Amino acid sequence: MTKVFHHPVQIYYEDTDHSGVVYHPNFLKYFERAREHVIDSDKLAKLWNEQGLGFAVYKANMIFQDGVEFAEICDIRTRYSFDGKYKTLWRQEVWRPNGTKAAVIADIEMVCLDKDKRLQPIPAEVLASLS
Amino acid sequence: MTKVFHHPVQIYYEDTDHSGVVYHPNFLKYFERAREHVIDSDKLAKLWNEQGLGFAVYKANMIFQDGVEFAEICDIRTRYSFDGKYKTLWRQEVWRPNGTKAAVIADIEMVCLDKDKRLQPIPAEVLASLS
Amino acid sequence: MTKVFHHPVQIYYEDTDHSGVVYHPNFLKYFERAREHVIDSDKLAKLWNEQGLGFAVYKANMIFQDGVEFAEICDIRTRYSFDGKYKTLWRQEVWRPNGTKAAVIADIEMVCLDKDKRLQPIPAEVLASLS
Amino acid sequence: MTKVFHHPVQIYYEDTDHSGVVYHPNFLKYFERAREHVIDSDKLAKLWNEQGLGFAVYKANMIFQDGVEFAEICDIRTRYSFDGKYKTLWRQEVWRPNGTKAAVIADIEMVCLDKDKRLQPIPAEVLASLS
Repeated sequence: MTKVFHHPVQIYYEDTDHSGVVYHPNFLKYFERAREHVIDSDKLAKLWNEQGLGFAVYKANMIFQDGVEFAEICDIRTRYSFDGKYKTLWRQEVWRPNGTKAAVIADIEMVCLDKDKRLQPIPAEVLASLS
Repeated sequence: MTKVFHHPVQIYYEDTDHSGVVYHPNFLKYFERAREHVIDSDKLAKLWNEQGLGFAVYKANMIFQDGVEFAEICDIRTRYSFDGKYKTLWRQEVWRPNGTKAAVIADIEMVCLDKDKRLQPIPAEVLASLS
Repeated sequence: MTKVFHHPVQIYYEDTDHSGVVYHPNFLKYFERAREHVIDSDKLAKLWNEQGLGFAVYKANMIFQDGVEFAEICDIRTRYSFDGKYKTLWRQEVWRPNGTKAAVIADIEMVCLDKDKRLQPIPAEVLASLS
Repeated sequence: MTKVFHHPVQIYYEDTDHSGVVYHPNFLKYFERAREHVIDSDKLAKLWNEQGLGFAVYKANMIFQDGVEFAEICDIRTRYSFDGKYKTLWRQEVWRPNGTKAAVIADIEMVCLDKDKRLQPIPAEVLASLS
């Protein structure tokens, strides 16, 4: 696993549900935002537009340990590693301000697919960002 | 305007926010679902996949008169008319169970665009559904 | 595990992303909708409003095996079991029309929390629905 | 109307739909995020938690002039004025990078409600932020 990358996410009305905390699927959104900043969003847009290559989540294992509330600015912590030439493994966590443990922990496997949804090796451009 | 078409929408956790009612942008989702049932979702998918034609909201004027709560099954009421060969006008409302007035009222203008975002006349297939 | 409960979900514009398939966090929404229909949404609303009790996802393990496209009506298949008096375990799958395997498979653990986010035993009302 | 306040919004997978551009209801989310930064999110959280006061959109009139694509960083431009002691009026726009006109234009009326959804005058704390 690499060092930890940090990405801040502020919690807005759109993120919460009527129980008063963040609606649980939204954490997958924050993890994706954070990964895109690690890889480089412009590079991802170019890969998609020019080569028809995109990344897809293949597996996601999540533990929800604490609720996150409106207006909090959370720290999304991201590390990753490679598993062969097709898979990247991501360890990602959500930390509340002043949190003493992660609010959410996720292990996520990503693969690269072409527009026909066929598995492709991780593109060299992405390897260059990640290495 | 046509007769009223009815489409039921149940409110889930995903629809609400921490204030305890439906998060306001979500009503635009319900209006779109209801329009797709009026036009016919399979026909819309075919138009997109085979001809690259899609519908886009050009204008939306909304009034939010009442909050809608978790587990309610609302009635989305839809009427429409044509405005020339390029535009359709939709009057749509959200009614809560036992509501005495609409919770949300919207006037929405839709246009048809090709994949280069150029305006196209309303396709004959859609006119056939709507007439 | 119980027998399989079936819940249909139609895929709208709101569900997809620019890669052309359903955006992966949305499957967690469909699983929640399906669980609410198994438990009974009105009962859940009553528990929340009268006793301040709600259900929260504690763990979710997901495998994404296939993309799901606009206008498809998927079958959300749900089974569950109990794990002591605090936890329910849910095996849920998304099946595309004419699918030969599940598009998404999830194992989800739910717990019951009060408004202070303290763990509570599964309420008798819910046990009555589920048994 | 006040001077223009600027708030950047990056477009992620979650924001787009299968037509390749931002799903139209999401612009209402960006407008809300921008307003919260003008008013001060911590102040809004405090008002809600301590006094049970929240802001609700009463009217929204929107024109969608251009599609917005993945990875773009848009500039949300916000101005506002007061209309009596109950209403604030917001003129908000979405500008794409290098845009020559606004992609989306909105006129939004906000009111302040208590937890029973009764109209309340704009709180002094918010007036202090906005003046």
